[in-house]
Amino acid sequence: MVHSPGIPDNLFLRGKVPMTKEEIRTVTLAKGRIGLKSVVYDIGSGTGSLTVEAALLAREGQVFALEREEEGVKLTKTNVQRFGLENVQVIQAEAPQGMAELPPARCIFIGGSGGKLEEILQVCQKKLAPGGRLVLNAITLETLWQAVQFMEANGFAEVETVSLTVARLNKVGRSHMWNGLNPVYIICGTKPEELEGEGEGK
Amino acid sequence: MVHSPGIPDNLFLRGKVPMTKEEIRTVTLAKGRIGLKSVVYDIGSGTGSLTVEAALLAREGQVFALEREEEGVKLTKTNVQRFGLENVQVIQAEAPQGMAELPPARCIFIGGSGGKLEEILQVCQKKLAPGGRLVLNAITLETLWQAVQFMEANGFAEVETVSLTVARLNKVGRSHMWNGLNPVYIICGTKPEELEGEGEGK
Amino acid sequence: MVHSPGIPDNLFLRGKVPMTKEEIRTVTLAKGRIGLKSVVYDIGSGTGSLTVEAALLAREGQVFALEREEEGVKLTKTNVQRFGLENVQVIQAEAPQGMAELPPARCIFIGGSGGKLEEILQVCQKKLAPGGRLVLNAITLETLWQAVQFMEANGFAEVETVSLTVARLNKVGRSHMWNGLNPVYIICGTKPEELEGEGEGK
Amino acid sequence: MVHSPGIPDNLFLRGKVPMTKEEIRTVTLAKGRIGLKSVVYDIGSGTGSLTVEAALLAREGQVFALEREEEGVKLTKTNVQRFGLENVQVIQAEAPQGMAELPPARCIFIGGSGGKLEEILQVCQKKLAPGGRLVLNAITLETLWQAVQFMEANGFAEVETVSLTVARLNKVGRSHMWNGLNPVYIICGTKPEELEGEGEGK
Repeated sequence: MVHSPGIPDNLFLRGKVPMTKEEIRTVTLAKGRIGLKSVVYDIGSGTGSLTVEAALLAREGQVFALEREEEGVKLTKTNVQRFGLENVQVIQAEAPQGMAELPPARCIFIGGSGGKLEEILQVCQKKLAPGGRLVLNAITLETLWQAVQFMEANGFAEVETVSLTVARLNKVGRSHMWNGLNPVYIICGTKPEELEGEGEGK
Repeated sequence: MVHSPGIPDNLFLRGKVPMTKEEIRTVTLAKGRIGLKSVVYDIGSGTGSLTVEAALLAREGQVFALEREEEGVKLTKTNVQRFGLENVQVIQAEAPQGMAELPPARCIFIGGSGGKLEEILQVCQKKLAPGGRLVLNAITLETLWQAVQFMEANGFAEVETVSLTVARLNKVGRSHMWNGLNPVYIICGTKPEELEGEGEGK
Repeated sequence: MVHSPGIPDNLFLRGKVPMTKEEIRTVTLAKGRIGLKSVVYDIGSGTGSLTVEAALLAREGQVFALEREEEGVKLTKTNVQRFGLENVQVIQAEAPQGMAELPPARCIFIGGSGGKLEEILQVCQKKLAPGGRLVLNAITLETLWQAVQFMEANGFAEVETVSLTVARLNKVGRSHMWNGLNPVYIICGTKPEELEGEGEGK
Repeated sequence: MVHSPGIPDNLFLRGKVPMTKEEIRTVTLAKGRIGLKSVVYDIGSGTGSLTVEAALLAREGQVFALEREEEGVKLTKTNVQRFGLENVQVIQAEAPQGMAELPPARCIFIGGSGGKLEEILQVCQKKLAPGGRLVLNAITLETLWQAVQFMEANGFAEVETVSLTVARLNKVGRSHMWNGLNPVYIICGTKPEELEGEGEGK
């Protein structure tokens, strides 16, 4: 059986939807500090690769995958089935829509925000249980900037921002050549215990 | 309880021994594709941070940590205890010494080789079960080169080499500044099923 | 005689003032597109290494180096003398102070802003000749962000932002190891011909 | 008049031949420490962009551009003409062929080796004047490795190897996103004065 984390990219169905690369996904997941019974949101689930890995870790918890595009919703569902997971609910919605009715979260991943990052962050703030983790992937300066500012302004603890640049060595003829991928920013933090929130998740 | 992978660096005791950074450790671990019952070697365990994470994944398996320096041995043992792990055996030895008597491995990590990489790789080749994973961390060109050549020359499958460059955003006064860490190479591959080996591990 | 650009770092006196590394300096300089008779400002000249290289290119022009710290002023003067340059004027001032009385500039480099970037950019905008080049080095997100926004908001042409990450291979024992330096951002653009300005420089 | 170095990429005609990017070219050029009267070789001139910049620096010297492909030869010639240069000789030859008859060099750039790097390096060693500079661009591990080994084995001084990773910020909609280019290695060194050589160049 496949064991999370670190599922190779080629085990996911991906269609034409861009997929977070394996190494980025693995580090992102780790920053979430998911527990066995955690409630997890995956905002902008795309292919569902992170959803799947999160669900394998939160085996006795629940993962809610939000995705606005129909193709992404289908792909996420297909990948969830492929790994035989029963603790995932895939919701077609444009966040922050669809978040209000969810149970408090232990961990929220934001992979895509469709231009509504500010609203999404506000709702995350409410839904996240004290001590819960907020983890964003950013490829634009704007998202990086907004995420850092939000965490600092809202008193998040353990705020950490890393840039990850992956290059892959390819064999070309008899030589080996690096193929550099674009840097991805991971911004994460912990909602302080004393802050108010609806959450009580594990 | 702490849940592997992705244990933050500051939860490990580290002394003066250099520790693989969190992000590198997480990706390295993922490349190992450790199973619940896997037998894992960690060659050059250093602080034991990777040993700990591997043992949390191979909960019903066994991890053998080899380390030649006494300080590293002590630190590995301390960190193993700190996480309450009982499936780890720490061995003070300069690899490849101490490897012959171990059971076949499902996954071998090489973090340090003390200048004996070639000999170590030869023994790994023998001890690794067919389908097993060999994963190296390299910071020198020489190790990178030797590892790539070894995998290619010995018919390893799924050979993959990535370079990972992490930068961390620090707050300096009212500004944010990147602090770039050194690139680390991760070289990994799968021992082909048809190759001979002693191994039969899960 | 030393020939600009590409003066090795070790030919400059540097004291305790941090110096832009050779590779960054060279690219920064190139983005300035300095002409033989150009008027150049170097805001925050530090050790004066960029000042020297700029003055070697603008051999029949003039370079104004602004620096607020006394040690930087001394170092800049020393390095200018060391290279026998007579087309440099070193001014101890905290920019934008000291800029108003200077002749219009063909090229302005901003290496340090002491927290007054916005004011400095406003004055640069006025002093820069149409078609002139504005080139910033940034190591903080804030400076990067402000510079990009300023150029876009003020209709600069050929706006270009690059991140440069240099790693240096060191020999350690018999191995070679990369030492990664921090990424530096270079933001540059051209003041549009039709914009008003005092400038008329060559 | 365009002033070397730092000619923007778009001022060169490039056809389908890959061109060294501006930032890499600028740093490479700087490492060559070209003098006003230097004799320079550009091995594997490609589009001739480096040739042009070298010739602008060695205004009273001579640049020999060697290129085996006809398209590269044409492009190099066109770009040399475009900048009105008369101190360049373009030679269609597969190096090391065509190098024997050239005058001793002050500076040799190797941008492409067509698989004959070892032979080329041997001839460079002979043709380079004592104190002359050898500068290679490498994108493969193999070339990096061979170049480093060659310089060390042949007693070159000031041997320096840097890796340069450039990312370019692009505007996508209302956001800014980095586009990472592949890392390029620059290996350079100085032929020791006491070593034998034919050379006597300036």
